Amino acid sequence: MNADSTNRIWIYDTTLRDGSQREGMSLSIEDKLRIAHRLDRLGVPFIEGGWPGANPKDVQFFWRLQEEPLQNAEAVAFCSTRRPGKTAAEDPMLQPILSAGTRWVTIFGKSWDLHVIEGLNTTLEENLEMIRDTIEFLRSQGRQVIYDAEHWFDGYKHNPTYALKTLETAIAAGAEWIVFCDTNGGTLPHEISQITRTVIQTLRQNTDIPINFGIHTHNDAETAVANALTAVLEGVRMVQGTINGYGERCGNANLCSLIPNLQLKLGYDCIDPSHLVKLTETSRYISEVANLAPDDHAAFVGLSAFAHKGGIHVSAVQRNPLTYEHLQPELIGNKRRIVVSDQAGMSNILAKAATFGIDLNKQDPKCRQILEKLKELENQGYQFEAAEASFELLMHEAVGDRQTFFEIKGFHVHCEQLEGMTNVLATVKVGVNGKNILEAAEGNGPVSALDAALRKALVNFYPALADFQLTDYKVRILDGGAGTSAKTRVLVESSNGHQRWTTVGVSTNIIEASYQAVVEGLEYGLILQTQGKEVVALS
Amino acid sequence: MNADSTNRIWIYDTTLRDGSQREGMSLSIEDKLRIAHRLDRLGVPFIEGGWPGANPKDVQFFWRLQEEPLQNAEAVAFCSTRRPGKTAAEDPMLQPILSAGTRWVTIFGKSWDLHVIEGLNTTLEENLEMIRDTIEFLRSQGRQVIYDAEHWFDGYKHNPTYALKTLETAIAAGAEWIVFCDTNGGTLPHEISQITRTVIQTLRQNTDIPINFGIHTHNDAETAVANALTAVLEGVRMVQGTINGYGERCGNANLCSLIPNLQLKLGYDCIDPSHLVKLTETSRYISEVANLAPDDHAAFVGLSAFAHKGGIHVSAVQRNPLTYEHLQPELIGNKRRIVVSDQAGMSNILAKAATFGIDLNKQDPKCRQILEKLKELENQGYQFEAAEASFELLMHEAVGDRQTFFEIKGFHVHCEQLEGMTNVLATVKVGVNGKNILEAAEGNGPVSALDAALRKALVNFYPALADFQLTDYKVRILDGGAGTSAKTRVLVESSNGHQRWTTVGVSTNIIEASYQAVVEGLEYGLILQTQGKEVVALS
Repeated sequence: MNADSTNRIWIYDTTLRDGSQREGMSLSIEDKLRIAHRLDRLGVPFIEGGWPGANPKDVQFFWRLQEEPLQNAEAVAFCSTRRPGKTAAEDPMLQPILSAGTRWVTIFGKSWDLHVIEGLNTTLEENLEMIRDTIEFLRSQGRQVIYDAEHWFDGYKHNPTYALKTLETAIAAGAEWIVFCDTNGGTLPHEISQITRTVIQTLRQNTDIPINFGIHTHNDAETAVANALTAVLEGVRMVQGTINGYGERCGNANLCSLIPNLQLKLGYDCIDPSHLVKLTETSRYISEVANLAPDDHAAFVGLSAFAHKGGIHVSAVQRNPLTYEHLQPELIGNKRRIVVSDQAGMSNILAKAATFGIDLNKQDPKCRQILEKLKELENQGYQFEAAEASFELLMHEAVGDRQTFFEIKGFHVHCEQLEGMTNVLATVKVGVNGKNILEAAEGNGPVSALDAALRKALVNFYPALADFQLTDYKVRILDGGAGTSAKTRVLVESSNGHQRWTTVGVSTNIIEASYQAVVEGLEYGLILQTQGKEVVALS
Repeated sequence: MNADSTNRIWIYDTTLRDGSQREGMSLSIEDKLRIAHRLDRLGVPFIEGGWPGANPKDVQFFWRLQEEPLQNAEAVAFCSTRRPGKTAAEDPMLQPILSAGTRWVTIFGKSWDLHVIEGLNTTLEENLEMIRDTIEFLRSQGRQVIYDAEHWFDGYKHNPTYALKTLETAIAAGAEWIVFCDTNGGTLPHEISQITRTVIQTLRQNTDIPINFGIHTHNDAETAVANALTAVLEGVRMVQGTINGYGERCGNANLCSLIPNLQLKLGYDCIDPSHLVKLTETSRYISEVANLAPDDHAAFVGLSAFAHKGGIHVSAVQRNPLTYEHLQPELIGNKRRIVVSDQAGMSNILAKAATFGIDLNKQDPKCRQILEKLKELENQGYQFEAAEASFELLMHEAVGDRQTFFEIKGFHVHCEQLEGMTNVLATVKVGVNGKNILEAAEGNGPVSALDAALRKALVNFYPALADFQLTDYKVRILDGGAGTSAKTRVLVESSNGHQRWTTVGVSTNIIEASYQAVVEGLEYGLILQTQGKEVVALS
């Protein structure tokens, strides 16, 4: 394959590896699996999952991925070149890479002589040998290799001859892609442009092997996106980055900006055009899973990216969006927001109703009622993007067909710590079939005690509850600046063993917010149960 | 003056005008004055203060500025060209501009035929007349004029001949600077480069008047900084932007990135080199005044911009910062941070001890004990990256000099919801000076009730507590897959009015985790109080 004869750009996502180096970001294996499958559905062709062996989590992630494989994307395992002084076949570091069971492996190696000598404490010659041996070994094991040239631009500036030798070695050893990495993130676009142009020309002159090039940039000079675009204009065909630009220090190149820039502005093919509309929801879903507040001012996918304030702007943009918008927000699944009187959303409500199997049309006054209710709740801090089950309940409420399984009468939580011992006891009162049921349970925290008491109270009436589980629980403090008086938003994911759904609760009292979400989770599960309905799984 | 024969770049700050268009940003007159004087001290030569006449606040701001004038910077009033159909002298809109009393005025006019016809509802010829008349009138009143060519790049792409005519008109009328504005923010660097080059050449060929050019970009394609740099490389000598990239939609070009890129990487003169070290504190001060959370991952000035995690990274960067840093953080008043995490090695611990003023050396067995303790706690779910106060307490504990202010004996929380009414009551028992104190308080959630009870119990012994506040509260569910039995990590930020510090608590019981963090927050505040110690402010 000679990638640069095509108009295609291979997007390579490293949210799960380089992205998760972001300070304060910590993903569980379940989180990683959810993100990987979401990226797969977006249509990203390469998904770097981690460095198996560097930590137990990444080993297990790749095993789990073998059980729940990606549909279209290639999962990629990441590793360094072998250590100095032993062969790749002998180096135990490379075994977990093979066990990861991916067709593709990314190997990073040193381009910068300073790092070879000061970082690896080895010779320049041995570094070349490490690159060659590692790639050849992986090729002999049937793997396809992407070679990440770490510190490429800094290395090339300091010692171009040696830096070029590392790439020639990787190419001769059988790497299919050579990726120029701006590891320290400080290179500016005009330097990226000059170096990329010269290097591609030189390498093409020196070898007959068809080579494909990639770019991996960081945002330390706030030019990561421009740096990647510049490299593409010089002939690079793989772009590495992360969703929302997550990554250590100032982050990696942001795929949420790169994909629309490349595809909608520069005319390259990155992902299936019909998937482009999923970009905004993918960005928000991943920030939710990572439990990081989304950046409202993010380009393309941010809540404010197409927000217009009152006056001339608004009427101009309504007559002709071109006047104040660089792009149609709908193309990437975002929407124009008129900050004064928001007319948008109606079509969203209708689309959602259709997904939920609720019969609703634009003329129906209920449609506007739902929109009003939605705005009121969002204003209070609710958010339904990741809590569709709660949104569906809200819609059923509005159209008047919400089923009632039980009535919440009240709860009581007692939580005590004395001399290092903690006791938590919850009592709930629920009404079922006209009867009031009181039940109590202990727990290792107030929410698990409440959840246990509630199930005890209801399981005799609804035996299906015995199979329900809480599979995820997330808490976000809204307006954290208000300290412990701030509002809390809780997301609870429930499962009945084969379906999963998420509900939301909001309150200044974290126990109350959790209880709301737990209660709606049970209610929604019972709807699924009685209707035999196929829920759209969250991931 | 012919600006482009020099190496100087004129920085033009528009935080107070375009920046404050950011959704959710609202500055009082006092805020605006504080920011203006701070920018003046940083050494920014032009400070755009607002559009006097568009709102009363901006009129008053310029009057106040006449009483408290800037030391070095030029304050600039902003306004559009006069309205169609009357002369500039007759247009009441221009009177407040003159009353603002600035030497410099920025006038924006239409470059794009579409906007002239659809937006202004006038003729292309009248638009030229509006540009000419407005600039000539202001010149006749002794003002120096900067001409902002609104929608320059889009206008030029649609109708280059007309767009050029607008600039030729502005130049002939006496504008000293012509500023290319990418108003919709969607132009990419290679287009900025081509258009800027062609236009500057054409205008220089067509006139003998020396002209100076500027650039004004927005971040809708996430390339605002690169776009401005590109224009500079094509000969532009004024760069307009905002501190922290504030601005409507996705923001304006970020001066906190542009200034170090231009001055430290490209060798231009922007501000006095001795002032460059004020950049980080200026960024954080302005986010404080604007009451917006600082972006920890911002390039150059972010808290994480020079943060290092891994052990190998840390020892390499300590030997030679060049290995993993694109720039010396001290140059812009930021600093390297060694992030404490279980990837940390001994070198991280020693580096941290030194920052805390704790005497520790590598041979000391306590050093290994701290590392072991750290790993054990991180394994339990603690995380000290963002909770340095808790880590400092842990270190004092290990070296045996942790002060005791009070002893936690126990607490009790009662939380009840009945018929929609919620009651929360907390009781605490603490030991101070050999006495047991019992206190109770209500709250709108369990944590605020506990916090209130604890302060009540302690404030008689430690009156300083009365000034402490909880300023931020964050909750993260670890291993959310365990549902409501999952562990909870709580981060609490406390303040005494002039310093801020963060503490951490972990438990399966969210109330217990919060209580731990609140208790350590009070303890650390008391240490600061008694030692008169200067804490490293978090932001």
